[in-house]
Amino acid sequence: MGHLEHLNEVFKAIDENQEEFVELLREAVEIRSVSADPARRPDCIKMCEWARDQLKSVGADTSLWDLGFEKPDLPLPPAVFGVYGRDKAKKTLLIYGHLDVQPAEKEDGWNTDPFKLIEIDGKLFGRGSTDDKGPVIAWIAVLKILKRLGIELPVNLKFVLEGMEESGSEGLEEGLKNNLDKISDVNFSCISDNYWLGKNKPCLTYGLRGICYYFVEISCARQDLHSGINGGSVPEAMNDLVWIMSQLVSVQGEILIPGIAELVAPLTKEEETLYDNIDFCMETFKGEMGSHGLLADNKQRLLMNRWRYPSLSLHGIEGAFSQPGAKTVIPAKVTGKFSLRIVPDLTPEATDKLVVNYLNALWAKRGSPNQIKITPCHGGKPWLADFRDANFSAGARAIERVFGTTPDFTREGGSIPITLTIQELTGSPVMLLPIGASDDMAHSQNEKLNRENFVKGMKVLAAYLFELGA
Amino acid sequence: MGHLEHLNEVFKAIDENQEEFVELLREAVEIRSVSADPARRPDCIKMCEWARDQLKSVGADTSLWDLGFEKPDLPLPPAVFGVYGRDKAKKTLLIYGHLDVQPAEKEDGWNTDPFKLIEIDGKLFGRGSTDDKGPVIAWIAVLKILKRLGIELPVNLKFVLEGMEESGSEGLEEGLKNNLDKISDVNFSCISDNYWLGKNKPCLTYGLRGICYYFVEISCARQDLHSGINGGSVPEAMNDLVWIMSQLVSVQGEILIPGIAELVAPLTKEEETLYDNIDFCMETFKGEMGSHGLLADNKQRLLMNRWRYPSLSLHGIEGAFSQPGAKTVIPAKVTGKFSLRIVPDLTPEATDKLVVNYLNALWAKRGSPNQIKITPCHGGKPWLADFRDANFSAGARAIERVFGTTPDFTREGGSIPITLTIQELTGSPVMLLPIGASDDMAHSQNEKLNRENFVKGMKVLAAYLFELGA
Ligand SMILES: [Zn+2]
Ligand SMILES: [Zn+2]
Ligand SMILES: [Zn+2]
Ligand SMILES: [Zn+2]
Repeated sequence: MGHLEHLNEVFKAIDENQEEFVELLREAVEIRSVSADPARRPDCIKMCEWARDQLKSVGADTSLWDLGFEKPDLPLPPAVFGVYGRDKAKKTLLIYGHLDVQPAEKEDGWNTDPFKLIEIDGKLFGRGSTDDKGPVIAWIAVLKILKRLGIELPVNLKFVLEGMEESGSEGLEEGLKNNLDKISDVNFSCISDNYWLGKNKPCLTYGLRGICYYFVEISCARQDLHSGINGGSVPEAMNDLVWIMSQLVSVQGEILIPGIAELVAPLTKEEETLYDNIDFCMETFKGEMGSHGLLADNKQRLLMNRWRYPSLSLHGIEGAFSQPGAKTVIPAKVTGKFSLRIVPDLTPEATDKLVVNYLNALWAKRGSPNQIKITPCHGGKPWLADFRDANFSAGARAIERVFGTTPDFTREGGSIPITLTIQELTGSPVMLLPIGASDDMAHSQNEKLNRENFVKGMKVLAAYLFELGA
Repeated sequence: MGHLEHLNEVFKAIDENQEEFVELLREAVEIRSVSADPARRPDCIKMCEWARDQLKSVGADTSLWDLGFEKPDLPLPPAVFGVYGRDKAKKTLLIYGHLDVQPAEKEDGWNTDPFKLIEIDGKLFGRGSTDDKGPVIAWIAVLKILKRLGIELPVNLKFVLEGMEESGSEGLEEGLKNNLDKISDVNFSCISDNYWLGKNKPCLTYGLRGICYYFVEISCARQDLHSGINGGSVPEAMNDLVWIMSQLVSVQGEILIPGIAELVAPLTKEEETLYDNIDFCMETFKGEMGSHGLLADNKQRLLMNRWRYPSLSLHGIEGAFSQPGAKTVIPAKVTGKFSLRIVPDLTPEATDKLVVNYLNALWAKRGSPNQIKITPCHGGKPWLADFRDANFSAGARAIERVFGTTPDFTREGGSIPITLTIQELTGSPVMLLPIGASDDMAHSQNEKLNRENFVKGMKVLAAYLFELGA
């Protein structure tokens, strides 16, 4: 049933027909599906219909899920649901992708029109080229080739494509919950919506950190005071707040909140080994950030700090003077903002409890007469897959076929909430299989997808299907 | 020469003619001399000409000093210079006041049209009523009465009235320097541009704090980072900055910078005594601020904290996330802002040196690889007069004649830069003689001057002239 013997034929056809798929990407890039811009909502809807038509054209059963309204007179784009194959003897793979893009204007600093696909030196520039229209079209390309060659798919496919990802995937979770019966038979899921760690070596991603965000509001007066008139008379809220914020993490980056470190899952030998061969250069990373130092002195520990250990960042203060210049205000109410990136086995609930307890203990120690209000908000759980499972094994073998090298197994420090949503709603293992490179500039000016990544990405996706069905 | 015997006659005439002076104030309030609004510049100029005409009408020799341009096509209002009396046998008093006002719109929350003088329950509401058109007109009223009664002035007067005070007195210092010969014979100066400490008891003000403002910039990366991708990998600038800001002042308000306290002039017995009878209620003050605590447990110490000891306030941070909501940025460059209100014998130079040395020592202790840049800016010296000098004695006796009580001798925590400028350029002692009450709402909505303060203010000014010339 695996038909692995077909792969060379498939790879050859992908190479020979690549121009056709670049043209498909060109069509897609020209649809300005900026989900954050209400004026572009018709384009988002058009883009979803375009993708539905593409899936239909290769023989998928498709439907558009109505997700309701963002606000009155502003409909959400529908989710595109596609079913390709219903063979009970085969496994079923769910493929997620998104069709909307980040805003882009030539004036933002683009060298070319962001909504025209332009190839320069093997790089396909255009908004959405890598995030996430390119990967979606790579899937469509694979289906077109297989259909054309008359090769039967070794697995059943279910597509879930949305048009609101860059705007918080509004409506999608509810849409999935309303259609749970349609995804209940999914055995594996695959998401191509992240990036290689570097520019040269492919990777598979098996973990994402979660996040817990905190507001600490301290107030010292009814309204802002003047440092000339009132300075020296009142215990100032800013003074309390900077002290509290200074007690959260050491200069070496250690989180000072008791109990956090103890809840982090211990590092296993097998996991530790993964880090040794990862293609990553500390100096390059430091140079790209333009930072003056790093919080680890070797590659392994630095990557672990970013991926498998929690970190605490101080984001800023609301309510204090934040403009240029020299204002002599004593702010009456200031809100410090910080967050923890959390990893297994830290849950948002456990983290909130430890953080709030610590803040309360700090406040008691401070002995200030001012008022404090601690608000934990929007906790997101970390995601961790088993990099040894059948999904990852299939992905790794696919990459080895195309690139001649085993992928790095990576995690990421940020979160992609849909990953956990899909894992939980399908009850099946998810794998993140990036196609683009680290320098693709998703969300930024001059977003691009290398033609090589695009074409090899199609081959990897094809090979992955055959490995999964083998 | 003193003619103190004329005072009862003068007081009676002030009482009888008060309506005339309220009408003068009405005329002045209707001239919208908002110096911050370029569109109102012709009104500022008109207001200066109006005041010049008033001085002329009582017999002063007047001139308008051209102060040049704020920017091309935007002339500065002229300063009004007036000379009243040139008797070499008499002392010469310089009187400063300003003719421009803060912006005001009915929509800001005024109960009445801000540019119409409206009397309600003995309160004269209108922009500029108390700051500073009322006090300027009180001087003009005194001259009108004396002229009408045929009473010779016991001192020579020199008026310096400006139209840019609310916009940093632009051009005035240069104008004074260009006319140094015209003010070189001044023996005393008097400024009525501050307020009573409370609502009931008059005061004379003999001290103002100076200010030293600091920027502490810390940078950790070339541009803002993302706490998901980079959190845990880079020493964060915000973490260093809040720590530094937390080391400046204790929860009890003590400045932690070594050497500052040692440079504060010791409290004298005579000075200490002044504080005992000052009409001031800690609980009222606390209630007005809506604060949760105070940095002193008795009235004397609280007032000293505000007036005769330095204070350190943290104003805010530029470059960090300061908007509502939850952004997960790691700010690349953040600038903490704080200032010290300074008092004799702290000079801006000595303060800067102590602060910069301390910040450098903190930074060395911190051991962060990040970059720091410390910028001291716009230091202003404190002002302190001798509350026992002839100027203050005359002012105090004048107040006693009108109010039947000796005034409180007060200082203020903020700065009024023109005070020091006039003291330095004339080489003569300055006194601040407030006419308005603490609740006059200068700079705010519903600014007012009590009719009683206005009328008694005229009497005090008249009596002061006779006491000074006695
Ligand atoms: Zn994406
Ligand atoms: Zn994106
Ligand atoms: Zn004023
Ligand atoms: Zn003012």
